[in-house]
Amino acid sequence: MSPSFQIERASGKARAGRLITPHGEIETPVFMPVGTLGSVKGVPQDTLEELGAQIILGNTYHLYLRPGVDTVRRMGGLHRFMSWPRAILTDSGGFQVFSLNELRKVTEDGVAFRSHLDGSSHFFSPENATEAQIGLGADTIMAFDECTEYPADRDRVRASMELTLRWAERCRKYFGEHKHEVPWNQLPVARTQLPVHGNTTDWQLTTENRQLLFGIVQGGMDRALRKESAERTIEIDLPGYAIGGLSVGEPRALTREIVEFTLEHLPADQPRYLMGVGTPEEIVEYASLGVDMMDCVLPTRAARHGLLFTSEGKISIKQARYAQDQNPLDANCGCRVCQRYSRAYLRHLYASNEVLAQVLNTIHNLSFYLDTMRRVRHSISLGEVRFPF
Amino acid sequence: MSPSFQIERASGKARAGRLITPHGEIETPVFMPVGTLGSVKGVPQDTLEELGAQIILGNTYHLYLRPGVDTVRRMGGLHRFMSWPRAILTDSGGFQVFSLNELRKVTEDGVAFRSHLDGSSHFFSPENATEAQIGLGADTIMAFDECTEYPADRDRVRASMELTLRWAERCRKYFGEHKHEVPWNQLPVARTQLPVHGNTTDWQLTTENRQLLFGIVQGGMDRALRKESAERTIEIDLPGYAIGGLSVGEPRALTREIVEFTLEHLPADQPRYLMGVGTPEEIVEYASLGVDMMDCVLPTRAARHGLLFTSEGKISIKQARYAQDQNPLDANCGCRVCQRYSRAYLRHLYASNEVLAQVLNTIHNLSFYLDTMRRVRHSISLGEVRFPF
Repeated sequence: MSPSFQIERASGKARAGRLITPHGEIETPVFMPVGTLGSVKGVPQDTLEELGAQIILGNTYHLYLRPGVDTVRRMGGLHRFMSWPRAILTDSGGFQVFSLNELRKVTEDGVAFRSHLDGSSHFFSPENATEAQIGLGADTIMAFDECTEYPADRDRVRASMELTLRWAERCRKYFGEHKHEVPWNQLPVARTQLPVHGNTTDWQLTTENRQLLFGIVQGGMDRALRKESAERTIEIDLPGYAIGGLSVGEPRALTREIVEFTLEHLPADQPRYLMGVGTPEEIVEYASLGVDMMDCVLPTRAARHGLLFTSEGKISIKQARYAQDQNPLDANCGCRVCQRYSRAYLRHLYASNEVLAQVLNTIHNLSFYLDTMRRVRHSISLGEVRFPF
Repeated sequence: MSPSFQIERASGKARAGRLITPHGEIETPVFMPVGTLGSVKGVPQDTLEELGAQIILGNTYHLYLRPGVDTVRRMGGLHRFMSWPRAILTDSGGFQVFSLNELRKVTEDGVAFRSHLDGSSHFFSPENATEAQIGLGADTIMAFDECTEYPADRDRVRASMELTLRWAERCRKYFGEHKHEVPWNQLPVARTQLPVHGNTTDWQLTTENRQLLFGIVQGGMDRALRKESAERTIEIDLPGYAIGGLSVGEPRALTREIVEFTLEHLPADQPRYLMGVGTPEEIVEYASLGVDMMDCVLPTRAARHGLLFTSEGKISIKQARYAQDQNPLDANCGCRVCQRYSRAYLRHLYASNEVLAQVLNTIHNLSFYLDTMRRVRHSISLGEVRFPF
């Protein structure tokens, strides 16, 4: 049993557990809202706390460019910089380098790329991507990997997988030598208990004040390579494992198949993180297959486009049919948006391009996702194999 | 003494009073945040309540175009539509018609104009601008006036002032015949006590459930015409009077001079509303001259441009000097932004074009304005003639 992860109840393949981080214990399975630049777009941190977000995700690539790792480190790490006392996970920057940079150049050493902001040249290696993540100081950080494109032939998938494995070894080595450099570990004990600007939230760090470095399984859509990637990543001996390289354009049925297959080759007693999924139905299904952690831009990005998730299905709030609809967005939802505003008002805000539309829509969608995961955890704790979807 | 306005304490020319509206009593002098389209841009209604906003302003021109008066009326009026249980004031639409429409055509009957959104043709008259404001159902509504341009020669200012006077008579007549049509007066008593979607805020309407129609004094920068406009508007016999036609490009010293002069010709026992001002220093000064109500887009608009008001002066948060500044925006401010976030974080949000920048900046600037007015009221209640600026 990992000291940072405890499974408390299983139901079928699903598990309800607890991930122990320096910034609090997280009940799993957990959905992690995406806060790319140190902000879940449009939502103040106190509202995120109220929604019950236990852990949020920051993107290393974006934070490295703005405001820069050095600034975040000097501000005491990402938690203090953004005044978020709960847990944070950062990705390695690999996925953004691959998805936002058409001019990238991959070598054994790492990836040369240009900033999407100003075209300036940069280089990510396993070592400096890990260095960046230590400087940002998230609780869970990710090995720098190559996200294999889809489709790709077997030779290409194998070569990419092998590169990711060699990079994971280098990340582990760099992390082992530099993990004490995490900014909140540099703070005197008294400082770690200080509130930020009179905020009463508890900033006291728990347990051993160490980051968790997770490995990432690649292997494309090839079962044999997925199995080999899982086994050889496990040999590197890390406190958790992610499944990467999915949701890259393949059919959903194939995603599910590869997830289910890969999970069978991951240690039962360690956290399993499926990166970048999915719809509400999908996150429930993946939890039922034994995934412990998930993140996705869908609830926040869809909100900005007026697409809202409800207990009765998706709603496109821009539609004229809602112009005089006095009902709440979702009569079964207890979030502050559904408790206060009508569909007519939300439709008006969206149609009028008011910023409050994005704020309220995002709050509701996140509430829906986080409530969904709470129900999943409850179902598992009752030993129910069939979930509420 | 007006049944809708009580003066509780005077200090020099300043007065601390109470404006009694169907949606609550307002302590004056009061600053009214601008919520053009039924939203104070970026700020949820519960946050506005927490900030202590007692009354907000809606723009009839904008709401008439989107979502339309008929929709707002069917939703029970603007309060219910936007779920705002406290007081609302709407302007007459006159100022926007004049400032947003270069192709307007003014006749004795009213103003023909084109929508700034789609170019469609519309017509505002004293009657239908009043009808629109009855339909929106604000607590305080404004007579439809012509905002005289600056500079203008004396003949032009007189003609414009006379037109505004004739229009004010027509507004009063229409209002007298139709005031019972306000949407919240149509609701059965039980309904007026119903919370909206479980919101616990008290929706019970106070006093006589009637809108207050205010007149607007014009007269350009000409003292004699200002005096005549005031006296003849007062003859129309309305429950409050506004000073319009200022902050239209004239020097600030002239604004102040005309305000001070005009106030001398307004009834001491009725509310006085100075439209569209000003900086924090100006709203304090105007309150000291005896103004009871003010509104301005400055705190909300400046926030969107990263200009923040603090107890030590204005800050442009985009400046690089704040990039690693761990201090709160204003160490003397108790708002939720200053209590939780650093200047470094606010600077990062603004520089990264994050929506949260607008949300947090607006909350702080409004807090600063509303706190300023609270201090002014406190000073008056202590009988202090000199204010805290």
